[in-house]
Amino acid sequence: MPKYVYHYFNSKALGEAPRLLFAYGGQEFEDVRYTENTYPAYKPNTLFGFVPVLFIDGKQYATSLAISRYLGKKYGLGGATDEENLEIDQNVDFVNDIRAKGAAVHYEPDEAVKEKRHEEYTKNVYPVLLAKLNALIEENNGYLATGKLTWGDFVLGSMVDYLKLMFRMPDIEEKYPALKKVRDNVYSIPKVKAYADAAPPTKH
Amino acid sequence: MPKYVYHYFNSKALGEAPRLLFAYGGQEFEDVRYTENTYPAYKPNTLFGFVPVLFIDGKQYATSLAISRYLGKKYGLGGATDEENLEIDQNVDFVNDIRAKGAAVHYEPDEAVKEKRHEEYTKNVYPVLLAKLNALIEENNGYLATGKLTWGDFVLGSMVDYLKLMFRMPDIEEKYPALKKVRDNVYSIPKVKAYADAAPPTKH
Repeated sequence: MPKYVYHYFNSKALGEAPRLLFAYGGQEFEDVRYTENTYPAYKPNTLFGFVPVLFIDGKQYATSLAISRYLGKKYGLGGATDEENLEIDQNVDFVNDIRAKGAAVHYEPDEAVKEKRHEEYTKNVYPVLLAKLNALIEENNGYLATGKLTWGDFVLGSMVDYLKLMFRMPDIEEKYPALKKVRDNVYSIPKVKAYADAAPPTKH
Repeated sequence: MPKYVYHYFNSKALGEAPRLLFAYGGQEFEDVRYTENTYPAYKPNTLFGFVPVLFIDGKQYATSLAISRYLGKKYGLGGATDEENLEIDQNVDFVNDIRAKGAAVHYEPDEAVKEKRHEEYTKNVYPVLLAKLNALIEENNGYLATGKLTWGDFVLGSMVDYLKLMFRMPDIEEKYPALKKVRDNVYSIPKVKAYADAAPPTKH
């Protein structure tokens, strides 16, 4: 069996989905977690200059979505057909676009620009995108795509706290209850729950 | 045979890769192209509020990368193993991250913020990312991933003019010759060249 070593911050954010997919697959992995203080020394070793990265028998792979798609397929959480995989991929891309809007606010270094953009996105961008995402999940029976559990649910479900933070929307699950449904569907899986309950606490 | 109808702007930008993949696969498709004037009337019909979208026998699918991955696999341009697909996906994600940096400048509505960010990215961001991308392609024998032609080359090769525009770097192919190599590898394929030569002219 291959040896898996996974590197990310001690956060859920962009890096929790692969951990939860390993838990779902019953696959042991080394779970290396950085803090803001310990990460800079490791960063130059990463393939593209960022985490997460995953070593499979010593070979390094990168990016949260690529790794999640790979593990999802391995553990039976891909689509049954090429068209289902297209549907999962497109809906994950949509989630990723929504996340990127929040990141463009949250990581903006100029405080005045940041506050202005937050105000504008809160008024004109987030409500439109999140309503569309909520409807999409409702049409899919409480899942992100194909009407059943896929790796896409792990991507979105593990990211809800991060979206809350970036959008400054602590009540996102009340406003858009389909997001809570996706999250609950993932975290109520016994192996996933066992991993999450035992994992180090994180802020988001 | 399924009927394909593809909707995008009359640009290459994010939407050319699927067109070139159809050409590579010898697959007829309806190539609907919008201008800035004709797009607003169509936009509400799109799955997520943006193009490209692809209709396969009347069912709508979306996002440039998801569609490119799907068509690439269909026409034999995916990886030979799950690990090769992971490598293609991660390298495409890296290209997409680089593109997103340019988009964060090019589409910034505040002129002062835009110019300041352009200056900073030109100094500190683009050179680092493009040097890394150039080296990655060199290691892969002039291809984006796995040392051979994949759909990832279609994504990057068809986007070079768009990167030039967004980065304001008309000499990007001279500075980073591996990008020119990827582009030439794609556009020198006879079926792709025939399509591109006959396609409507675009700015980028």
